[in-house]
Amino acid sequence: MTQNIYDTAAFFAGYSRLPRSVEEFAAAPEWPTLQSMLPDLRGLRVADLGCGFGWFCRWAAEVGAAAVQGLDVSENMLARARETTADPAITYARADLEQLDLAEGAFDLVYSSLALHYIENLHGLFEQVRRGLMPGGCFVFSVEHPMYTSPGHPGWTRDPDGRFAWPVNRYSEEGARSTDWLAKGVIKQHRTLATYVNLLIEMGFALARLEEWSSSRAQVAAHPDWAGADERPSFLLMKAHR
Amino acid sequence: MTQNIYDTAAFFAGYSRLPRSVEEFAAAPEWPTLQSMLPDLRGLRVADLGCGFGWFCRWAAEVGAAAVQGLDVSENMLARARETTADPAITYARADLEQLDLAEGAFDLVYSSLALHYIENLHGLFEQVRRGLMPGGCFVFSVEHPMYTSPGHPGWTRDPDGRFAWPVNRYSEEGARSTDWLAKGVIKQHRTLATYVNLLIEMGFALARLEEWSSSRAQVAAHPDWAGADERPSFLLMKAHR
Repeated sequence: MTQNIYDTAAFFAGYSRLPRSVEEFAAAPEWPTLQSMLPDLRGLRVADLGCGFGWFCRWAAEVGAAAVQGLDVSENMLARARETTADPAITYARADLEQLDLAEGAFDLVYSSLALHYIENLHGLFEQVRRGLMPGGCFVFSVEHPMYTSPGHPGWTRDPDGRFAWPVNRYSEEGARSTDWLAKGVIKQHRTLATYVNLLIEMGFALARLEEWSSSRAQVAAHPDWAGADERPSFLLMKAHR
Repeated sequence: MTQNIYDTAAFFAGYSRLPRSVEEFAAAPEWPTLQSMLPDLRGLRVADLGCGFGWFCRWAAEVGAAAVQGLDVSENMLARARETTADPAITYARADLEQLDLAEGAFDLVYSSLALHYIENLHGLFEQVRRGLMPGGCFVFSVEHPMYTSPGHPGWTRDPDGRFAWPVNRYSEEGARSTDWLAKGVIKQHRTLATYVNLLIEMGFALARLEEWSSSRAQVAAHPDWAGADERPSFLLMKAHR
């Protein structure tokens, strides 16, 4: 089972105070791009893998999805997600994404935001997504960009002009990376971009769009603590059809 | 027209002495991967965009291609390519890849090795490739990896463990990069990996495979001057079907 860091008290408390947790979509700068990759949700049956506090589920129901299933491994997250909605189109369930079991053809869209870089068995997960989707169904997800997860020592340096630069190494060495983010020893799985693309293709998906999202210069100017985030992509966003 | 650096005397002299120019495939460490992405060439009509000295054309004819058309902007390269073969299956012609004009459906495979990162009008080139291919035909190419072309100051640094690291910045700023390689001011076009992928998809190609090629640790151990080349990818290799 995945390291369930979200159910440790200190991490959950820290996570709950993040701008993303408080301001929801408004503090997720990649959301407009990810949103532009989604199909028209009216009437669709939607799964959200790693739904967290359930913002996407609530939004999907509001814009007309017929049924929305939010799945997460964290009891803490699901408890909060359930508190914030009474929409009968939304259901939440606990699920370990390492051992997902989706009913065949049960969904028209499978969505996942910033969860799959925690998963060891991505092959198994993609197989389940394929199984859970109707033919022609859509898979849209975001993960931390491989350039972001690869370094042995993630952190900004400066180039000879004084401009921020992100020193990449260990790129082709896939596997666990331990980082200290809200807690010590948070484990993420580094994979190359090629691995995400080729796994989808081998699984029979047709790749429809790929985005390497980085902050704009204007966003960085408005958030001095994001300094450097316009120099290399933070997130990889993908869309594929079954 | 593309900067035709290969027809300046000093650059051509330097290029002609490179291991890649003297030892051909043996000094192109990415070749086995690129080769594994090719279809069975027997009976196929093949175009090689940026054919250089014509090694690939000669190899393609040897393994059974029905007709091989080598195209290059450099008279110097084409003259040498013509000298090295009398195979009637091979023809060479001068062509500016910025203004390519391929006959409709004339080819079953379009191949290009390390040429397209010189091209400004990649959209126009991909359109020509699509036009030149038979339905179901195959497009296989390599370019310098976007992580390699992006930095304002390309060059290795060391991380806190003393391990080589490649400082990436300016990644989302597409356009010309001037580097000093065999000559001052060689112009390459930096593009994001997303741009290569999305341009192919928008043009109606189905992506079949993507590889981010970096040297293995063993290759770096055998070539001390490649130090660092196992830490981040040097080349992007792609295969798509019309």
